[in-house]
Amino acid sequence: MSGNQMQMVNAFDTAQAEKLPETERALIDRRARLLGPAYRLFYEKPVHVVRAKGVWLYGPEGEAYLDVYNNVASVGHCHPAVVEAVSHQMGVLNTHTRYVTDGVLDYAEALLATMPAEIGHVMFTCTGSEANDLALRVARHHTGAEGLIVTETAYHGVTSVLAEASPSLGPNMPKSPLVRLVPPPAAAGGDRAAVGAAFAGGVQRAIEDFAAHGIRPAALLVDTIFSSDGVRADPAGFLAEAVETIHAAGGLFIADEVQPGFGRTGAGMWGFARHGILPDLVTMGKPMGNGYPVAGMAARPEILTAFGRDLRYFNTFGGNPVAAAAGLAVLGVIREEGLIANAARVGALLKSGMEEAARRFPVIGGVRGAGLFVGADIIEEGKPSAARAARIVNGLRERRVLISASGPAGNVLKIRPPLPFSAENAAYFLEQMTAVLRTL
Amino acid sequence: MSGNQMQMVNAFDTAQAEKLPETERALIDRRARLLGPAYRLFYEKPVHVVRAKGVWLYGPEGEAYLDVYNNVASVGHCHPAVVEAVSHQMGVLNTHTRYVTDGVLDYAEALLATMPAEIGHVMFTCTGSEANDLALRVARHHTGAEGLIVTETAYHGVTSVLAEASPSLGPNMPKSPLVRLVPPPAAAGGDRAAVGAAFAGGVQRAIEDFAAHGIRPAALLVDTIFSSDGVRADPAGFLAEAVETIHAAGGLFIADEVQPGFGRTGAGMWGFARHGILPDLVTMGKPMGNGYPVAGMAARPEILTAFGRDLRYFNTFGGNPVAAAAGLAVLGVIREEGLIANAARVGALLKSGMEEAARRFPVIGGVRGAGLFVGADIIEEGKPSAARAARIVNGLRERRVLISASGPAGNVLKIRPPLPFSAENAAYFLEQMTAVLRTL
Repeated sequence: MSGNQMQMVNAFDTAQAEKLPETERALIDRRARLLGPAYRLFYEKPVHVVRAKGVWLYGPEGEAYLDVYNNVASVGHCHPAVVEAVSHQMGVLNTHTRYVTDGVLDYAEALLATMPAEIGHVMFTCTGSEANDLALRVARHHTGAEGLIVTETAYHGVTSVLAEASPSLGPNMPKSPLVRLVPPPAAAGGDRAAVGAAFAGGVQRAIEDFAAHGIRPAALLVDTIFSSDGVRADPAGFLAEAVETIHAAGGLFIADEVQPGFGRTGAGMWGFARHGILPDLVTMGKPMGNGYPVAGMAARPEILTAFGRDLRYFNTFGGNPVAAAAGLAVLGVIREEGLIANAARVGALLKSGMEEAARRFPVIGGVRGAGLFVGADIIEEGKPSAARAARIVNGLRERRVLISASGPAGNVLKIRPPLPFSAENAAYFLEQMTAVLRTL
Repeated sequence: MSGNQMQMVNAFDTAQAEKLPETERALIDRRARLLGPAYRLFYEKPVHVVRAKGVWLYGPEGEAYLDVYNNVASVGHCHPAVVEAVSHQMGVLNTHTRYVTDGVLDYAEALLATMPAEIGHVMFTCTGSEANDLALRVARHHTGAEGLIVTETAYHGVTSVLAEASPSLGPNMPKSPLVRLVPPPAAAGGDRAAVGAAFAGGVQRAIEDFAAHGIRPAALLVDTIFSSDGVRADPAGFLAEAVETIHAAGGLFIADEVQPGFGRTGAGMWGFARHGILPDLVTMGKPMGNGYPVAGMAARPEILTAFGRDLRYFNTFGGNPVAAAAGLAVLGVIREEGLIANAARVGALLKSGMEEAARRFPVIGGVRGAGLFVGADIIEEGKPSAARAARIVNGLRERRVLISASGPAGNVLKIRPPLPFSAENAAYFLEQMTAVLRTL
């Protein structure tokens, strides 16, 4: 693996391009020529897709790939209800929020209805990065403080300030004196009080370290399923003590729901709800428009008072009528197709299937997850093995089954299909997984 | 005008809501309840829109507003070619750039073909804010320096670092020790060498002030039509000396084409081309997808080398096949409908019409612009008058003609219609403008 790819789990290594068929190599060369060197492809042998439907992606020869990875096409690729809503609204009105429009209000109302009553406002952006960046601006203005606490392998976005708070992007990202990293919740799970105390202890130490440097904390920002930290879902409820800890220090708790939000955990719409906590700010993105660029930040109203009085916020495309139509359609599909219950039911099959595989194949050191987000630790001689995880990821890709990997050591399989994933899809996936595990 | 609205030109003052009809007041109350206090509406009496077509926006009773303001719906509201391209692609494939997809490459190729040959790569984001934030990250990594130079009333976006470099957002925005503000180019225009030397002189002083604080400049970032500085288009070519100045100090020149790009100036696709300069980085946004959230950053390849080697960039929705389809459709419409030539021709009518109005109405102190972006200074007793500008903006709104205002003193009328604006539309606009000017 060449140096420039080492920082990213499951990245295609351009040094290996000569092993590809000529047509694929030509496409990848064209890509490098036009898009430059900062883009990365997945897999040893990248996947070329030309269309998609439901939980399937299709290559140029019609070859079907089972999607066990994508959380953006969350209600299924090219879902007709979302396509129709966007197509219709595109032809009627697509303008900004400095005129009064109705759609954004209908959507805001429907979205806020899925949240605790204390969360009364929502603001719209185009991406999860913009939502987290706005949340940080709001938290800093509200608290008058600057410190930001995130986990050791966090990912929260790609703007300047968020890249500095996203260590999962690799060791070369700039560091900020205003950011502290805390250990993620214990992988082994266990007693809720113990996991909660350990995680909150890390937050408390970060607060104390800030204090030693004359910095007050503005916020603790966490992905409530700890995706890039290797999927840390259980025991549900462990986040409560950390929320108390940051509040006691005058900081806010920001729930980054870009990964767990919109039903993925199977335990309701939002990852924070599993923990029985009330965030000050909630950020959301990827699955929100099923691929249409829409994201947002919801807030307890009192958190926005000073920001709204002293500053203002305008996002050109944020909250436009088409974004609102896409978002509203997604909420409708989740409800009408019972996708949260499906995530719970099929997610349980996936998890128990992986647990069974763990009993047969010692390469799997542990299985974690909630709903349709399952992580599995791949080990070798008791230690995390990114190389073995990559062999599994690429072995599945050869069988046209798409997953990826994550975690601090790059050894956690990331099993995260679109929400309409069926029991049959799960059985097929587990069959292919077993076949790959046998080859190791 | 209440304090919280004073910072924004042409903002609706919520304290005046009781003057509105009850149905509109109820909508605005609902908006405040759901979206919170950070949103702002335009006009003393906000405009409620339910559909749009071409250069017209329509209210709930079918009332038609002539759009002389919106640059996002740049090829015309709800243009059928863009609606069709997005609708079709939404139903086929909408996924991210870590798989190989063809559309983003076709679009990148078509987009780069509109630029100088030296600009060889393009990267995609969803918003102009993300594009400028990325450009700043790239410039800082490439130069190893941190200082950023912008104009005194610049607007470059809403992320944390860009809000600090966007003084037009108001005096309460946080300041950064890494940003220096320079006076905008002379409003009066005049000799190219003199205007160029004056502007470059400001840049040189900023570089020296950075040096006095131990900071090296990473970039000079300017909107090449200086929209929020009050529209400073002429004399074309004046930017060349400032580009030499920043280069001599080791910094990059970033052309923010979010406002002038995609044909608005009538003198080609890009505002920087009018100045005969070669930017290191070019950022673009608003008109790029005619309302679909797509934006990007183009670069001279050598500027991306270190960033691509040491870091990486992934934007979930950026460069997805639907964004690419929208962008490609917009390029097609600009070409097929001759919109650049139209911007030149109708823009000249608008500008000469405003110049004629300036001769009749001394309230107009000066007229500037390029193509379909015209600015007019509103004065009273020789001084900038934001109050009179607001009366004109709101007087036109009462006549269902939509413009706004900008500039350091809030007194510059911003006349910036969609590009298919016709000679007949221009004549109607000028007739309504004259009628309002008579009432002052």
